[in-house]
Amino acid sequence: MIDLRSDTVTRPTAAMREAMARAEVGDDVYGEDPTVARLEKLTAEITGKAAALFVPSGTMSNQIALLCHTQRGDEVIIGEGAHCAFYESGAGAAWSGVQFEVAGRGGLFGPEELQVVIKPPADYHPRTRVVALENTHNRAGGRVFPQRDVIAIAEVARAHGLAMHLDGARVWNASVASGLSVAELCAPFDTVSVCFSKGLGAPVGSAICGDAATIVRARRFRKMLGGGMRQVGVLAAGALYALEHHRARLAEDHTAARVIGAAIREVPGANVREVETNLVQVDLPVAADELVAAARARGVLVSASGARRVRVVTHLDLPAARVAEAAAALAEATREVVTRKATPA
Amino acid sequence: MIDLRSDTVTRPTAAMREAMARAEVGDDVYGEDPTVARLEKLTAEITGKAAALFVPSGTMSNQIALLCHTQRGDEVIIGEGAHCAFYESGAGAAWSGVQFEVAGRGGLFGPEELQVVIKPPADYHPRTRVVALENTHNRAGGRVFPQRDVIAIAEVARAHGLAMHLDGARVWNASVASGLSVAELCAPFDTVSVCFSKGLGAPVGSAICGDAATIVRARRFRKMLGGGMRQVGVLAAGALYALEHHRARLAEDHTAARVIGAAIREVPGANVREVETNLVQVDLPVAADELVAAARARGVLVSASGARRVRVVTHLDLPAARVAEAAAALAEATREVVTRKATPA
Amino acid sequence: MIDLRSDTVTRPTAAMREAMARAEVGDDVYGEDPTVARLEKLTAEITGKAAALFVPSGTMSNQIALLCHTQRGDEVIIGEGAHCAFYESGAGAAWSGVQFEVAGRGGLFGPEELQVVIKPPADYHPRTRVVALENTHNRAGGRVFPQRDVIAIAEVARAHGLAMHLDGARVWNASVASGLSVAELCAPFDTVSVCFSKGLGAPVGSAICGDAATIVRARRFRKMLGGGMRQVGVLAAGALYALEHHRARLAEDHTAARVIGAAIREVPGANVREVETNLVQVDLPVAADELVAAARARGVLVSASGARRVRVVTHLDLPAARVAEAAAALAEATREVVTRKATPA
Amino acid sequence: MIDLRSDTVTRPTAAMREAMARAEVGDDVYGEDPTVARLEKLTAEITGKAAALFVPSGTMSNQIALLCHTQRGDEVIIGEGAHCAFYESGAGAAWSGVQFEVAGRGGLFGPEELQVVIKPPADYHPRTRVVALENTHNRAGGRVFPQRDVIAIAEVARAHGLAMHLDGARVWNASVASGLSVAELCAPFDTVSVCFSKGLGAPVGSAICGDAATIVRARRFRKMLGGGMRQVGVLAAGALYALEHHRARLAEDHTAARVIGAAIREVPGANVREVETNLVQVDLPVAADELVAAARARGVLVSASGARRVRVVTHLDLPAARVAEAAAALAEATREVVTRKATPA
Ligand SMILES: [Ca+2]
Ligand SMILES: [Ca+2]
Ligand SMILES: [Ca+2]
Ligand SMILES: [Ca+2]
Ligand SMILES: [Ca+2]
Ligand SMILES: [Ca+2]
Repeated sequence: MIDLRSDTVTRPTAAMREAMARAEVGDDVYGEDPTVARLEKLTAEITGKAAALFVPSGTMSNQIALLCHTQRGDEVIIGEGAHCAFYESGAGAAWSGVQFEVAGRGGLFGPEELQVVIKPPADYHPRTRVVALENTHNRAGGRVFPQRDVIAIAEVARAHGLAMHLDGARVWNASVASGLSVAELCAPFDTVSVCFSKGLGAPVGSAICGDAATIVRARRFRKMLGGGMRQVGVLAAGALYALEHHRARLAEDHTAARVIGAAIREVPGANVREVETNLVQVDLPVAADELVAAARARGVLVSASGARRVRVVTHLDLPAARVAEAAAALAEATREVVTRKATPA
Repeated sequence: MIDLRSDTVTRPTAAMREAMARAEVGDDVYGEDPTVARLEKLTAEITGKAAALFVPSGTMSNQIALLCHTQRGDEVIIGEGAHCAFYESGAGAAWSGVQFEVAGRGGLFGPEELQVVIKPPADYHPRTRVVALENTHNRAGGRVFPQRDVIAIAEVARAHGLAMHLDGARVWNASVASGLSVAELCAPFDTVSVCFSKGLGAPVGSAICGDAATIVRARRFRKMLGGGMRQVGVLAAGALYALEHHRARLAEDHTAARVIGAAIREVPGANVREVETNLVQVDLPVAADELVAAARARGVLVSASGARRVRVVTHLDLPAARVAEAAAALAEATREVVTRKATPA
Repeated sequence: MIDLRSDTVTRPTAAMREAMARAEVGDDVYGEDPTVARLEKLTAEITGKAAALFVPSGTMSNQIALLCHTQRGDEVIIGEGAHCAFYESGAGAAWSGVQFEVAGRGGLFGPEELQVVIKPPADYHPRTRVVALENTHNRAGGRVFPQRDVIAIAEVARAHGLAMHLDGARVWNASVASGLSVAELCAPFDTVSVCFSKGLGAPVGSAICGDAATIVRARRFRKMLGGGMRQVGVLAAGALYALEHHRARLAEDHTAARVIGAAIREVPGANVREVETNLVQVDLPVAADELVAAARARGVLVSASGARRVRVVTHLDLPAARVAEAAAALAEATREVVTRKATPA
Repeated sequence: MIDLRSDTVTRPTAAMREAMARAEVGDDVYGEDPTVARLEKLTAEITGKAAALFVPSGTMSNQIALLCHTQRGDEVIIGEGAHCAFYESGAGAAWSGVQFEVAGRGGLFGPEELQVVIKPPADYHPRTRVVALENTHNRAGGRVFPQRDVIAIAEVARAHGLAMHLDGARVWNASVASGLSVAELCAPFDTVSVCFSKGLGAPVGSAICGDAATIVRARRFRKMLGGGMRQVGVLAAGALYALEHHRARLAEDHTAARVIGAAIREVPGANVREVETNLVQVDLPVAADELVAAARARGVLVSASGARRVRVVTHLDLPAARVAEAAAALAEATREVVTRKATPA
């Protein structure tokens, strides 16, 4: 089986396991784990922020950011389908007590679309407080948020006293695709959430990055959420290894995704969004589950991301040598389900 | 000044004041206020529900409904611009810990638009739990939600195990406009929020209506929110008077709104939505504040409900004899600000 | 029936009703109700604070104070049995997300007892943020908090950066009993909650008082809780009348309570706490419900405030002429239930 | 340095690291990590529950239990100083919206002490919903909760419809000390939280155990709190190793603690609570920080757990061969600080 459901499914490599097995550890709740300290320092450097905090998941880093920026009843402006509203179990409302308001359509948006959803100050309105972008944007098909839009959005946000948060779970991919450094991509934001367990291939872990005072508060919220872990340097070692060794190779994942996207695009009836990073998004004239099943029958796992939409994700566990095989299998599977539909019994 | 900013601005009539002054009262926190009991009984009858609970505001009745129907992290589906998300200070997230998801565009929506936003059960998704409609829908311009759509929406909701809540602050207007009884309009819903202090002209108060078990829970949440009041029969008497004497006359408000809408529609450049009830919604080629100011200069108060949108609301403090005067003043004011724009200095 | 269950059961007097019937009103959500404005101004003056906000209940004013002073996960130090923890349906945790920590025993406490429960700053501890006193303290039997203790507590609080809140629902009684002005009693506090509907005899309403910036925030929270009311000057007029006419007469309630307390104290086996204000607290060797029933049989309503504790509350609906009658009935009822126990069948 | 601040400071042994390095892993958010599955199965068996869920920390397992058992505004009865109220950053109020009520004094309590703090049902009271015990109880000095009390408490709880939760972070120690199996100790409880990273010596991790339906809900709350981790079998392998190899040896820690306790008890002025498990609790006539510093100067780290209270914790990183050395150093340090006080300069 070739598992292309998500870039989270990768297993640690032998070298990464070796690094984890040898990691120097301490009690990180007491701030005494040297490997965690190294990871946090390097992550802060790469994102261009003063400080970083290791946490168990991207959900936790996003939620901590909301807790740091908001008060009960505040409003957070997001792009459509943002992870923090769509894939975090309603945590934003449950823990921070915040509402989400969607700017634009489709996930990305521009400064004018932000402007119209900022609520004027009034006792009866939720108080707009944060703009949260996602880059790359998962439900937009792994698209890179154009940096000129990010900068223009940040200007509008500043003018209204709003905080800027980046869900940068895949900012590594955005950096490789855009040619801009991670720090450049993160510069317009107060806080950034990054994941080590997606494209980078670490087994577990994310980080929230920001200025020193915010990360002090983040540490408290991590404890409150139950994310304080003891000798967690074992995990941090995996993340550190990933950060040091797996960033540049994301270009291979992007190439693989383009190859797969091109193959599927050949099938009449399948609508493949332009591939920008490591996600291939396929809109079908049939139920997504049909393609999921047909692909599985050909040895490839993919996932439905909508009633008629399928998502294919490339990652480091897909060897370059098997990309053509995966592309062919998915194209065939797509052809089968599209044709089946066109030829009623 | 003719105050058409909202139907909340009405002052109690002499007869209503008389009823309030003579109201028999008791300690309602102990359940001993006879006037409150009468009001709750009558409200339950009119809405066709088993029980009703008097509360200080429409915000509280809506929020109690959310608290009764949801758990932390749940999702509530609403029409765009719904009062509970737009005008309640973020209370849904702050108190219930729920997110809102918008179905369709413009406030009203149909069953297919509901269907696509219901999230499938998954640990990572917020759990869709409630569909909340608003009838008439304020930010849709006082439009009446077509009852066939309400019924079809309720079927989809039931099929997914979702509760149905009606924000019926102006359901009295919807009943008069549609010719359907309030009970018919409320039948597809588990809970209904109604307001006595809008078109009906009572000084203060709303009610939440539903089955007996829900209203027992609602009473507890009212206490928790600080809405338990003692000898509140004084207010209930005003609401009772309004319910008994001011429902039929809403037709006059609708007529007045149509007259005003027709007058403004004459002005080239002003876009007046079809008037269905007591709200007139005017879209302008200029800033809403300009019309607000120009109208005020002519003795009429109206309010901005968007950057270029003005809302005019008729109510029982607008005497039939002054409708023409108000219509003329607003038409003139509109003409002035539209023309001003067309003729640059 | 003489109803001494609570000082909330009083009904508005004829003069108060007259004041309410004639009250000038406006839309208070728009800040346009002149009677509310007068009440808020007078309340602020009497409590010695810059501003005040009218709200539907003491629960809401206390909860708004917590919302103004705290963040999610903070801790509020209270005396045992404080209203905000015991009688507000768990609202402090539900809305503000705060824990309560009890200082001392019995309701009142001193500065050393405060000192030991303040938690040192640490990520794992709740963050101590507020000290909330209750004066008079209901579950302590209407006791007056000694002002020297209040001042010493405030010093400790300031030294730790803690806010001070007074639940002054019955601060009017504390003032009459202590001979200190309400403003003096309130001086050590950042915020004060007062009730018009208890000893003062208004049908409905409370206020939160504090500095101007806090009251601006309080207004927003009032809206969020559903406490924004429209032409609520009708109620404010009752509260204003109560404030102007019923404060001095509280001394009569205190006298009546002492008479009743003295009568019951005569009964061997009944333990009557020293009466400081308008509450009489009786500890019994039998179930409280027995005395409640026996008193009712003699025409007096009282309430259980513990398994073997009964509370008797005097107020303006108990005419001076009937105090002796009430005292005799309660003493007899007490004698009956205590004797019944002593003489097994 | 001998680090006896906590049993959390242990570092993974070579054998444990080996087990972690070789662990088979999968994506646990998809439920596909075989090592996590094995750990959860074994934990459920040992605690005698139907199911278990691996989580990053004891704070998260306790908080998930509260989320599973409660609604906003509910009340949870605890022993004084319970971890869930004292050491979890206020999370119970922040996330679940629950208040804590303390039964008895000192941490442990009996059924009568429970009975008196259960609130009768009333709209104005918080609704009592859960009894949460801690066994062994940390702030009680590692005391074992007598099982007959636990059983009697559970009877009272059932009679009032309350859920029973055990914070069993150190239930392994309670089992070794009492001679009762972990399953016996857990039997009276609906949910149990256990920690692998305290006495058992795993680097990270806890579990919540209960019936199958509760653990399905727990999984959702884990995601909502950000505790869903991907290839977390690496950590689960450490916990599994600890569970299989480090339980029986806790008896050595208890012996070591008794030796240390006995040595300190010799010092006049030091009050050492009877040592029941692996915690030694020393009450001093001087500031705890003085003993902490004096011990550090002699090569032993301990921690203050109160203004004049020190906690010493034994664990698997304290070799049997060094127990006497640690005991002597701590006794000397204690003597020094106690004497220093007695002999003013
Ligand atoms: Ca992975
Ligand atoms: Ca939305
Ligand atoms: Ca009105
Ligand atoms: Ca009253
Ligand atoms: Ca450890
Ligand atoms: Ca407590």
